Amino acid sequence: MIKVLLCGCNGSMGKVVTDLVNEESQMNIVAGIDKNKNNQYNYPIFSSFDECNIESDVIIDFSHHSMTSDLIDYCVKSKTPAVICTTGLEDTVIEKINSASKEVSLFRSGNMSLGVNLIMDLAKKAAKILKDNFDIEIIEKHHNKKVDAPSGTAYMIADSINEELSNSKDFTFGRHGRSSKRQKSEIGIHAVRGGTIVGEHSVIYAGPDEIIEIKHSAMSKKVFASGAISAAKFLITKEKGLYNMDDILK
Amino acid sequence: MIKVLLCGCNGSMGKVVTDLVNEESQMNIVAGIDKNKNNQYNYPIFSSFDECNIESDVIIDFSHHSMTSDLIDYCVKSKTPAVICTTGLEDTVIEKINSASKEVSLFRSGNMSLGVNLIMDLAKKAAKILKDNFDIEIIEKHHNKKVDAPSGTAYMIADSINEELSNSKDFTFGRHGRSSKRQKSEIGIHAVRGGTIVGEHSVIYAGPDEIIEIKHSAMSKKVFASGAISAAKFLITKEKGLYNMDDILK
Amino acid sequence: MIKVLLCGCNGSMGKVVTDLVNEESQMNIVAGIDKNKNNQYNYPIFSSFDECNIESDVIIDFSHHSMTSDLIDYCVKSKTPAVICTTGLEDTVIEKINSASKEVSLFRSGNMSLGVNLIMDLAKKAAKILKDNFDIEIIEKHHNKKVDAPSGTAYMIADSINEELSNSKDFTFGRHGRSSKRQKSEIGIHAVRGGTIVGEHSVIYAGPDEIIEIKHSAMSKKVFASGAISAAKFLITKEKGLYNMDDILK
Amino acid sequence: MIKVLLCGCNGSMGKVVTDLVNEESQMNIVAGIDKNKNNQYNYPIFSSFDECNIESDVIIDFSHHSMTSDLIDYCVKSKTPAVICTTGLEDTVIEKINSASKEVSLFRSGNMSLGVNLIMDLAKKAAKILKDNFDIEIIEKHHNKKVDAPSGTAYMIADSINEELSNSKDFTFGRHGRSSKRQKSEIGIHAVRGGTIVGEHSVIYAGPDEIIEIKHSAMSKKVFASGAISAAKFLITKEKGLYNMDDILK
Repeated sequence: MIKVLLCGCNGSMGKVVTDLVNEESQMNIVAGIDKNKNNQYNYPIFSSFDECNIESDVIIDFSHHSMTSDLIDYCVKSKTPAVICTTGLEDTVIEKINSASKEVSLFRSGNMSLGVNLIMDLAKKAAKILKDNFDIEIIEKHHNKKVDAPSGTAYMIADSINEELSNSKDFTFGRHGRSSKRQKSEIGIHAVRGGTIVGEHSVIYAGPDEIIEIKHSAMSKKVFASGAISAAKFLITKEKGLYNMDDILK
Repeated sequence: MIKVLLCGCNGSMGKVVTDLVNEESQMNIVAGIDKNKNNQYNYPIFSSFDECNIESDVIIDFSHHSMTSDLIDYCVKSKTPAVICTTGLEDTVIEKINSASKEVSLFRSGNMSLGVNLIMDLAKKAAKILKDNFDIEIIEKHHNKKVDAPSGTAYMIADSINEELSNSKDFTFGRHGRSSKRQKSEIGIHAVRGGTIVGEHSVIYAGPDEIIEIKHSAMSKKVFASGAISAAKFLITKEKGLYNMDDILK
Repeated sequence: MIKVLLCGCNGSMGKVVTDLVNEESQMNIVAGIDKNKNNQYNYPIFSSFDECNIESDVIIDFSHHSMTSDLIDYCVKSKTPAVICTTGLEDTVIEKINSASKEVSLFRSGNMSLGVNLIMDLAKKAAKILKDNFDIEIIEKHHNKKVDAPSGTAYMIADSINEELSNSKDFTFGRHGRSSKRQKSEIGIHAVRGGTIVGEHSVIYAGPDEIIEIKHSAMSKKVFASGAISAAKFLITKEKGLYNMDDILK
Repeated sequence: MIKVLLCGCNGSMGKVVTDLVNEESQMNIVAGIDKNKNNQYNYPIFSSFDECNIESDVIIDFSHHSMTSDLIDYCVKSKTPAVICTTGLEDTVIEKINSASKEVSLFRSGNMSLGVNLIMDLAKKAAKILKDNFDIEIIEKHHNKKVDAPSGTAYMIADSINEELSNSKDFTFGRHGRSSKRQKSEIGIHAVRGGTIVGEHSVIYAGPDEIIEIKHSAMSKKVFASGAISAAKFLITKEKGLYNMDDILK
């Protein structure tokens, strides 16, 4: 039985991870960390890593980027691997993660869905093959409460496409006007917002009389929890080092 | 046999209309009008209406908005009905059309595809029923040579939705930034450009856990020619007046 | 406050309706009916209508077709309107509903989603306009546990399209072979099954170089609960009679 | 200047190849082979390879499988490489091609679109990563004149997915009935037919709350001509041997 410490257990993703681990036969949550100690679960919750006196095999972290530095300290001190799913990390924290990964195994990804990471991989491959004969556009769709646009994942996809191209492309957000033809050097990124859409990302390659489309739709937050659980299972089999979804997809 | 005078016969749409009329059994083109008199067809071409000495039952016009005023004069003088497919008309010309329609039957539409006009109709109906619980977004896709964005047709659809709503909505073109949640008062319009896409318009209604989508794809310019031919057949059965695609769809 | 009696409260839809009514300010559930009296809710549960001694303004029924006859008896006796969301009803029960509607107001629909009923309406309108120049095909997608194919809703859509056509079309399920061209008299219906897809229905009209598509996607069962709640609010304002989603969409 | 001999020049693909080569600066057609010698082109047409007395650098073949054996004889005798785009080849002819490729460079593919071959590659990769947690379904769409269903390309995609899987899956064509849940061992293949759709292939991977879709749309036959021209340019740089689209995509 893999013992999990769940950081951010009272957040919206914390609840989803708890539900999903409860359906797992090889894993259980032994404790949670959350500033809000209000407990609806069958495991103890601590308000900080300092207070936590329960050992675990792996940490799953869906908390806030302000907690990541403490998390890393705890990982190094207790030799506990961690799957870091928190986004919006500052550069200094990213460096801290990189250094710490020399002493403990850590996993970090900007999007925890296996499917999203797969389409990123496919999108790179397609960009490499189709070259300059095809125009690339990205459409992402999210719910009407999302404040940032385009999504971090849309940027991740666009950046990873650029890695494959000899001439990196610029991003265009919303075309409006009467005088500007599309440039070869553009990737158009379109942020659709509406209703309760969980998350959809589509990469379009439009060439001469031919279109290729690679699309991912998430229907619930469970896909991110599921990716984190897969990553945790993967991570505990690995030596110290820094891992990401590409290592699972290999 | 319906005798057609084709205005703008040497343009790209002129060629498509000619090919399609050639496949028709009830219609033939008796003459063309085009500044470029270079003749690849089996009918005579005149460089202006003044020179044209051939009678016709109906005019199909796919020329340039600078010719529309002359066209109207010819229609009134010769009592010939006309299907005006030219876009980008100035307000004074539009007024001239309105006046002339008291003396001769005229047909005008911003998009000659029957299908586009149908989805405009469906989009209005959907907006009326779904009301404020659903967020409306429009995605249009066109080839990489198109200079205006969004397409005139996307605006037509958005405008016709607004006609149905008690509170007319504003248009948003491209979301980019980190702090602005979608407003109930927005319609997002997204202009995708790439390859040789002829034209695709999609209206999305995203509500609580439910999405409705109404979509039209044109695979060639033939659909516009085909709409113009249908309009011509419709028009010659009508009394003087101003008609549009809604009259055919009724 | 509208007092609701929820029939089938312990089924999967019963739970969703309970959650959604809890978010409503104008409505609450005063009692449930379910053979399984195991109670996880804050209202009493009775195992049959006979036992139920609590008055209500309207019944929402997501139970089993074997219970519908008892439900109708209760409605007539107690003069309580009912929204009947149960499917698979026998002909005798449907007749009983029709008769009972002369004494009490009843609402019945094969699919409680407002959106699905809207696209049925749009699909009819499109079929009427596009006539025989366009081939109609329906694609529906559902989760891999669904045993019936195509979905009842796909049949509802196809039947309602047939109502509009002068020559009713036959249904084709899965093309496979090397010698049969599509007939004008066909509607192809394709049942895609996979993963946890809640429900998607798409009607395609493919004509000469032009395609129209009308599509509905449900992302959770909430949309059916939400439709039932809207129907309940609608029904209590109406005289006795039999109503369906079309009456709400008018 | 690459000198092309176009076999099947008077067929529908022959016309498209001729038009496209005319736009090329590095290539021209020096002669055609077609049983129908009716000549609308600016190059001579021979009714058989025996009659052809003009030398070429490469042959592009869009004729009929009954001509392929003669074609191979000509290739070997004249040491001319050939791009064979004809489908429906008999096994004996395929063996003849394999043998001949020891003496001359030959290229053969069941679908000449670069894009289709790319999505086949992506589809294999996705199947390998997603494993048994995702259900695979293929939807293909073609015009209403196509007699075979599903398309040869849909089979090619399904077969190439099966190559990646440890347990090869069965194909299911059209679900219809009330009692059969989807099996893990199925790939559903759905053949939509309507209007003038040139060709669309979509591979869907539906997993728990997550869907990945890889889609190709051809908007005209030009994409097959374009693939053949790319293959011809590729082939003349290669040693003798048998090549296919995978070799270009590498």
